[in-house]
Amino acid sequence: MTGDLLIRSVRPWPNVPGTPPVDVLCEDGRVAAFGADVDPPPGVAVVDGRGGVLLPAFTDAHAHLDSTRLGLPFRPHSADEGLAGLIDNDRRHWRSAEASVAERATHTLGRTIASGATHVRSHAQVDVDSGLEKLEGVLAAREAHAGRAHVEVVAFPQCGILREKGTAELLDAALRAGADLVGGLDPAGYDRDPVRHLDVVFGLAEKHQRGVDVHLHDAGTLGAFQVELICERVSALGMRGKVTISHAFALSGVDDSRRTELVELLAEHDVAVTTVAPGVREPLPLRQLRWAGVRLGLGQDGIRDYWSPYGNGDMLDRTWQLAYRNGFRRDELVEMCVDIATRGGAAVMGKALGLTEGSPAELVVVPGDTVTAAVMDRAPRTVVVHEGRVVAAGGEVV
Amino acid sequence: MTGDLLIRSVRPWPNVPGTPPVDVLCEDGRVAAFGADVDPPPGVAVVDGRGGVLLPAFTDAHAHLDSTRLGLPFRPHSADEGLAGLIDNDRRHWRSAEASVAERATHTLGRTIASGATHVRSHAQVDVDSGLEKLEGVLAAREAHAGRAHVEVVAFPQCGILREKGTAELLDAALRAGADLVGGLDPAGYDRDPVRHLDVVFGLAEKHQRGVDVHLHDAGTLGAFQVELICERVSALGMRGKVTISHAFALSGVDDSRRTELVELLAEHDVAVTTVAPGVREPLPLRQLRWAGVRLGLGQDGIRDYWSPYGNGDMLDRTWQLAYRNGFRRDELVEMCVDIATRGGAAVMGKALGLTEGSPAELVVVPGDTVTAAVMDRAPRTVVVHEGRVVAAGGEVV
Repeated sequence: MTGDLLIRSVRPWPNVPGTPPVDVLCEDGRVAAFGADVDPPPGVAVVDGRGGVLLPAFTDAHAHLDSTRLGLPFRPHSADEGLAGLIDNDRRHWRSAEASVAERATHTLGRTIASGATHVRSHAQVDVDSGLEKLEGVLAAREAHAGRAHVEVVAFPQCGILREKGTAELLDAALRAGADLVGGLDPAGYDRDPVRHLDVVFGLAEKHQRGVDVHLHDAGTLGAFQVELICERVSALGMRGKVTISHAFALSGVDDSRRTELVELLAEHDVAVTTVAPGVREPLPLRQLRWAGVRLGLGQDGIRDYWSPYGNGDMLDRTWQLAYRNGFRRDELVEMCVDIATRGGAAVMGKALGLTEGSPAELVVVPGDTVTAAVMDRAPRTVVVHEGRVVAAGGEVV
Repeated sequence: MTGDLLIRSVRPWPNVPGTPPVDVLCEDGRVAAFGADVDPPPGVAVVDGRGGVLLPAFTDAHAHLDSTRLGLPFRPHSADEGLAGLIDNDRRHWRSAEASVAERATHTLGRTIASGATHVRSHAQVDVDSGLEKLEGVLAAREAHAGRAHVEVVAFPQCGILREKGTAELLDAALRAGADLVGGLDPAGYDRDPVRHLDVVFGLAEKHQRGVDVHLHDAGTLGAFQVELICERVSALGMRGKVTISHAFALSGVDDSRRTELVELLAEHDVAVTTVAPGVREPLPLRQLRWAGVRLGLGQDGIRDYWSPYGNGDMLDRTWQLAYRNGFRRDELVEMCVDIATRGGAAVMGKALGLTEGSPAELVVVPGDTVTAAVMDRAPRTVVVHEGRVVAAGGEVV
């Protein structure tokens, strides 16, 4: 019976405005058929979509589940300015949180799934202070929600690699302990040696045959140089399709011709990009990236943690944020944001989602007159489906 | 019994974290006393604040109640690019809305009040196509919610004054028909003659002894020049404290020294500023404006209308948007946004709100651990009080 489900009364994107609802039959974890008044095969579960908009499930392509405090008493922000201040603030406080990393990550992953995301890529901080504790917490959260979402974990050197002796060895251990990818952080701007930093990251990726996801806040020509360094390593190691650059502020901090060069470089090396729709930094050139064929996903970043009070575990809220921050009013542009938040992020994780027969039954039903209305309303999700099974309904995990 | 009320169990800002809840007694529409376990005088209504954060009520200092479609079937965005495209799109469609201007404005004003706003300044489009119909609709909405909120209405020449003959006469008629202020719109960039445009606006203001609220999207040096023109007229006509510049993008499109000059000019002439926390345009220098003593308010702008799909009638959501868009993480900066959205906007409308004994009983109770947490959570408002009476509770108008 695994992955067999009949969803009654949904309006599959893009055929939303004015079309009558249909039923969707899922078999063996895939979309098998769309139709009116489908008879469920014997023993197949049936769930009511209540006429909502049917979308591919969301993908949170950039989370930090290890640091979240969502659901705990609110804590005033106490960090000094800058990345170093934020790193130090987390280090001073995370051990005294009212709940363990595993408990906190499990709660927020649950909220994320309830919001409609069935694919999540979370970073887990690996450093000489926390060792593998945070990684283990995120892996425990993944285990707690096994069957509800596909979760990738990045061994993330949040405090740099070269600045603190022993970090490279910890990253190595993290990859042996179950991390799916190896991360990096501002090889120049924070770790002060872009070549050595990236050599460690890509060396570990090659050794363990894993993917790479590098946080790159460095903007302008310094960031652009590091995009080149990353692409050089992708080429040398044959890692097309295995590497992601998160934030990628370099793409918005250079002139038009340089930006076009960088976008073409990313496309040529099939390096993916993720954004978290930040409030202040200039938005990424979303349309240009997509036209060039760059895989582009959306993430929640830190969620109410020692870094920031923002974030609530809701990927539809984050999708609204992406649209608002880009000033998109036209429906096709708001829908592009939905595509980035669903199929786009899944592609970053190497998965092809869709809404045709044969697509994986990774689905979310959202109340709303149209897709854009659903984004503006941000009502609790009616149904969330992972591998053909209902994993959340009415805004709560089941 | 008018305006007498006991609010049980609230935590007045700023003494929120860790402080036990208190009761607040309102008498004759003013805050009379704070205390523990206050006995209500005989016959005084009692409402439970459930331990929430007590704030001054919100002020929506820049609304367009005449154009809203909130609550109606969602309509795909159909405007061409630019201000002219948006104006034309509205003109082609507003008459065929499923409900009258009065009905639409009444619904959205109700949502705004339910969100905690008891002061609202709404623009009402006055032009040769709609005449005074939109103004009358907004005045009807004000009447429908009389006793729930104080509403000012601006006779707003959304299509320019000089571009269409007869608009100045219509503005004159609008002021006779009940509009509280006279508006203006991009005197140079849209109406093509800043001096003549402003002379009409300030001429009408002087004739009717009313305030002025000018939409100024023009940025950079062109916008800065018009800020000067406005201040010259404020000075010549003795209108300190009676004029507002909405959007004021000129403040963010000039260099630091010019911006400082403009901020000082606004302060010197007591010209207020409102922002709607737009997603794309550079944020205003909020701290600089406040340090200089410029009255600064927050508004919702158009709310799901022919101009834009954004907006939901919730001033706390808009407050979150202001904080997010400015990248504010520290609690005092998020709280500054709350101050702009509450006392700031009220000051734009000439009202002094506060949370001390003697303050007007214009109050909202919001669930949340702290003020910042309340902004991040954006939970339905527990209680909204106007003139000492409960006007909304649990997120609904009563």
